[in-house]
Amino acid sequence: MLLDELTAALPSDLVVSDPDVVATYLHDEAEWAAYDAPLAVVRPRTADDVAAVVAFCARHAVPVVPRGAGTGLSGGANSVRGCVIVSMEAMSSIVEIDELERLAVVQPGVVNDDLRAACAERGLWYPPDPASSPWSTIGGNVATNAGGLCCVKYGVTRDYVLALQVVTGTGDTVRLGRRTAKGVAGYDLAGLMVGSEGTLGIVTEITVKLRPMRDPERTVAGYFDSIVDAGRAVEAVAAAGLTPSALELVDRQCLLAVDAWKNMGLAVDANVVLLGRVDTPGEVGDAEAEKMRACFAEAGATWSVHSTDQDEADALFAARRLAYPAVERLGPVLTEDVCVPKRAVPEMLSRIEQIAERHDTVIANIAHAGDGNLHPLLITPRGDDAARARAQAAFADIIDSALELGGTVTGEHGIGLLKMDGLAAELDPVVMAMHRSIKDALDPHGIMNPGKVIPLLA
Amino acid sequence: MLLDELTAALPSDLVVSDPDVVATYLHDEAEWAAYDAPLAVVRPRTADDVAAVVAFCARHAVPVVPRGAGTGLSGGANSVRGCVIVSMEAMSSIVEIDELERLAVVQPGVVNDDLRAACAERGLWYPPDPASSPWSTIGGNVATNAGGLCCVKYGVTRDYVLALQVVTGTGDTVRLGRRTAKGVAGYDLAGLMVGSEGTLGIVTEITVKLRPMRDPERTVAGYFDSIVDAGRAVEAVAAAGLTPSALELVDRQCLLAVDAWKNMGLAVDANVVLLGRVDTPGEVGDAEAEKMRACFAEAGATWSVHSTDQDEADALFAARRLAYPAVERLGPVLTEDVCVPKRAVPEMLSRIEQIAERHDTVIANIAHAGDGNLHPLLITPRGDDAARARAQAAFADIIDSALELGGTVTGEHGIGLLKMDGLAAELDPVVMAMHRSIKDALDPHGIMNPGKVIPLLA
Repeated sequence: MLLDELTAALPSDLVVSDPDVVATYLHDEAEWAAYDAPLAVVRPRTADDVAAVVAFCARHAVPVVPRGAGTGLSGGANSVRGCVIVSMEAMSSIVEIDELERLAVVQPGVVNDDLRAACAERGLWYPPDPASSPWSTIGGNVATNAGGLCCVKYGVTRDYVLALQVVTGTGDTVRLGRRTAKGVAGYDLAGLMVGSEGTLGIVTEITVKLRPMRDPERTVAGYFDSIVDAGRAVEAVAAAGLTPSALELVDRQCLLAVDAWKNMGLAVDANVVLLGRVDTPGEVGDAEAEKMRACFAEAGATWSVHSTDQDEADALFAARRLAYPAVERLGPVLTEDVCVPKRAVPEMLSRIEQIAERHDTVIANIAHAGDGNLHPLLITPRGDDAARARAQAAFADIIDSALELGGTVTGEHGIGLLKMDGLAAELDPVVMAMHRSIKDALDPHGIMNPGKVIPLLA
Repeated sequence: MLLDELTAALPSDLVVSDPDVVATYLHDEAEWAAYDAPLAVVRPRTADDVAAVVAFCARHAVPVVPRGAGTGLSGGANSVRGCVIVSMEAMSSIVEIDELERLAVVQPGVVNDDLRAACAERGLWYPPDPASSPWSTIGGNVATNAGGLCCVKYGVTRDYVLALQVVTGTGDTVRLGRRTAKGVAGYDLAGLMVGSEGTLGIVTEITVKLRPMRDPERTVAGYFDSIVDAGRAVEAVAAAGLTPSALELVDRQCLLAVDAWKNMGLAVDANVVLLGRVDTPGEVGDAEAEKMRACFAEAGATWSVHSTDQDEADALFAARRLAYPAVERLGPVLTEDVCVPKRAVPEMLSRIEQIAERHDTVIANIAHAGDGNLHPLLITPRGDDAARARAQAAFADIIDSALELGGTVTGEHGIGLLKMDGLAAELDPVVMAMHRSIKDALDPHGIMNPGKVIPLLA
């Protein structure tokens, strides 16, 4: 009956009723995160559609779960009992690219790579590049403050959001932020929305800053026997004063998984590979690349090269991007996302090895190593409940270690459902109370993605 | 009696009682912004002192007005009736500079230039450089999200704040943000505090990101007959895809005022001077500087040069930094701070000329022209009430024009008292209500800098 009322309140073709289709919207890619049956899935075409859905849900105390492409890894988009899932996929227009002001206005359903391609046609560049960029949307990137490979030099999604149109928890449609290069008129509410994982409102339009297209990057590769040596190389690169445009770590397990899947002919003669990039132009950039290679060598690389073969370099980076889906083919994967100070990278990688051994869990490693953002991938055999319990214990231990080393429980994937205990461990109770008071202020009916990030009150 | 209780509640030497000394804390540098008599001035030495003051004020419903160096230009630090002014000047230690992690931890009373000098000794750089950098403090810079000359390329204060220790309106001391390069654990409360002008809490410690020291800059200067031609040059630089590390505009009135004060021997053969800088290394940087010079020339510069004389270039930039205090010597100055899209810079400069004529008001111009942030300086003769009224009308007209052109009422100086009408004109009432609900959530007693930014309820 509530569903009939919802359907009556909206253009009829917005509401998805086919159970097989509804089933494809129930959760994101977080392994073992809970989800429950929704009331409905709605695919709005306009901000007014979104406002109508939220107003309906506010009147009827129905939870609202916004959803981008569902590539999240923390359960933030998972369905909660009786909710309306608002999938933003139909709002996928690039509204405007302004070359002079260096900004783009997009709807939330635009795929990250599509925006990047459209910008490239104008000689412009949208830097945030999560590994999910071929599939994830700008709306989802904003909701999670997505990072990526190049953010070691160029920052994360929040650094590029100038303005947002948002439907708040009261069903009001508001514009936050500005189109000018600078502005301090009032609180940074656009920044507050970024990374709030749908708990404060639904983003219906995004204005992002762009940069001029940059020069081609140089690639430096290093092979290491041990992951701790690779961690030392990361520390050495920071200590040398270098600012790489990417500094990625991929271990042998990930490379083998990619090769088994894609037959890329990757030669894997190392346990761990570090991939660095430098985009400083001219001779200065050449010198920086050579300095990075020397850092790799001094830290114990068994082989290191400043690559002049662009195809080989691109293949290595493509393998890095494919590592997560490739490993997922081997069985359920619980993905970690801790971020630690650069100085702590070797120690954290060493502790991950110990945790893997202690909990008898296979842990593969990829990492945005240059900014200390590690993604240990905990792999379990399908249907092995004991292995699953061990992996979950290892997951918790990794979080504890990261906090002990001055790190954070999530570098870029968000809290969602999987990291709620971690958030409570990381934040002071007073700071948790500040979160709750802001949530109450902007979502007075408590309908926006309830039970994510901030625990429901008992 | 309340004052006796306050004095008893604190280490006795923290409370300033000498009326002559108290008088030096009553207002910032905003011309004609209201201020009233405080209950007391307190100079805390520790975060615990600050917490004790705020807790006292919360118990007794006493307003709290935080204050940095008092160089603000919007009245944000002005005393309100019966308040406790909390001057952070005694908390002026640089706690830590970490070269490997590229961050610094400082107390709020550290002067901007002192932090920059300490960083430079380690080969590091703290970019935000408001023209007030020899006097203004990092705490004040955080409270106002200060900009500066280099933010056209390197961003503003918010882009460098990693973490804050804050005493909230409830007297709780909390840590917000993180020390890691990335992190998305919870809402961006550190970012929310930046630019909140003391209305949500008092910052007691700041962790900022640093960059490696950059290469020496090249300077490009251009002389123009008309300010609108200079505005066209700014637009041309953006259209050419250049990213200057500074692009400043100074008019003849400002240069003459500086020369009259400092005898710098500035040759001023132009009505308007544009000063561009380029810090891209190597030949690429040389080519960019030449391209910028060509943009100046094509826009109608009567003279333009890619300067190889570092002393001359430094003198021009020093003059730019001294323009505001120099002009202030001529009489009361009402300082504007609108920011418009780059495309609108010529039109906005033209409208400012018309507004000056219409209201018979002398308006000198300095501008962070490269990001469309204009600072028309409205100069009035001392004690001329009619001129003051005309200047205030011109001030309001400039704000209206900026909003018409898609701009904002404040690029970097903040709302304080002077721009409260402007904020109400710029923001949707629903967004103003969101501001109020967040203020109520984090400052439930309504004691933090009340009546600034957000109007008091009648």
